[in-house]
Formats: sequence, C-alpha cells, structure tokens
Amino acid sequence: MSDTERLPQPATADIDLVTVLHALGDPVRMTLLLSYADGAEHSCDPHGLGLDHLHKSTVSHHMRVLREAGVTTTRVAGRNRFVSLRRTDLDARFPGLLDALLPAAAS
Amino acid sequence: MSDTERLPQPATADIDLVTVLHALGDPVRMTLLLSYADGAEHSCDPHGLGLDHLHKSTVSHHMRVLREAGVTTTRVAGRNRFVSLRRTDLDARFPGLLDALLPAAAS
Repeated sequence: MSDTERLPQPATADIDLVTVLHALGDPVRMTLLLSYADGAEHSCDPHGLGLDHLHKSTVSHHMRVLREAGVTTTRVAGRNRFVSLRRTDLDARFPGLLDALLPAAAS
Repeated sequence: MSDTERLPQPATADIDLVTVLHALGDPVRMTLLLSYADGAEHSCDPHGLGLDHLHKSTVSHHMRVLREAGVTTTRVAGRNRFVSLRRTDLDARFPGLLDALLPAAAS
C-alpha cells in the first residue's frame, strides 16, 4: 500500500499472541474490536463508536494499543484517520482466534 | 465435587471473556497455560513449571490471576495444591477459543 499512509504497525509475522491478548483484555478495547468486526473503516470519533462517556484522549490511547499490537490498521487521509481490523493478518497469524473471540465477545 | 476442597473460582457461567484475555495477556501466565494444556494436575513448584527464575510469590500471584479468571482450578490436599486447566468449562463457555490459542501459543 505504497500510496496509502498508515500509522506504524507491526508486520504480520511480528504480531505477538500475548500482546494481542493483553490488548483485548480490556473492556473498552473489546468494545472497539466489536465495532471493527464489521470489516469497515471507522473514524476515530468516540460518539460513532458508542464511547461518548470517554475522553477523546482515552479513546485514542486504546486505539493506539490495538494498533501497536497488530489488531488494527490506521489509514491517514489528510486530517482524518480511519481504523479497521486486520482480519486477514490475524487469521493468517492465529487461525481460528477471531472466529472464536468475536461470537464470545458479542454474546 | 463436595468431597474435594478447591480454592475459590468463578462458576462456569460467570467466566468473563475480557477477564480471561487479560489473564492470558502476560508471558508468565501464557507459559503456565501451556504447562496446564496437558490436562494434568500440576504442583505449584516453580521449578516443575520451568519458572525457576521467578520468586515463588510471583508465581503464586500469576496462578491466582488464572484461577480467579476461571482459567484454572486449584485442588487442595492437605498442604499441597494442585492446579489444572478448566478445559471443559472454557470450551463450553467460549467454544474454539483454547483450540485456537494453544497451537498459536506453542508455536
């Protein structure tokens, strides 16, 4: 994706299981995961993510943890940033993990 | 198991996904999970768990986190305590999760 600017993220082969589990072992970040599970890009607006009760900087912190763990990717477009799940990368790295996690988290 | 004394642990229905992920999002606790993956009971001796480099109280702390999250059960027999994985309970609560986690963690 040379024509797309992205915030720093680990290469697929460098995504670490313990780091991913730590990233997802938090209720706010699990809420974000469920939002991103649709595969679409999401803006960083806390309102659109159902996180109105949190300060924007808190939401940004949680997004950063997810991105640095390799769970999400962030595309930069001017002043906007769009976050999406690295579904293909995670499925390749840890087969079956998201398939097990997402239904369990949504129930 | 009325004839067996166990340390406190959540009922199967009360095992919380985020709490489990938080418990497993730590390298020492992931090492313990891999030891317990054989389904057998294990003593709390750090040496037998390949954790000689850690103080016994540190290992005890990590074991407590796993037990309180519902990942393990601890049977008390006199002065001895034996820890094992709650495989059946976890498989019932979060189908496919351990099946995905254990191979990924072992690789």
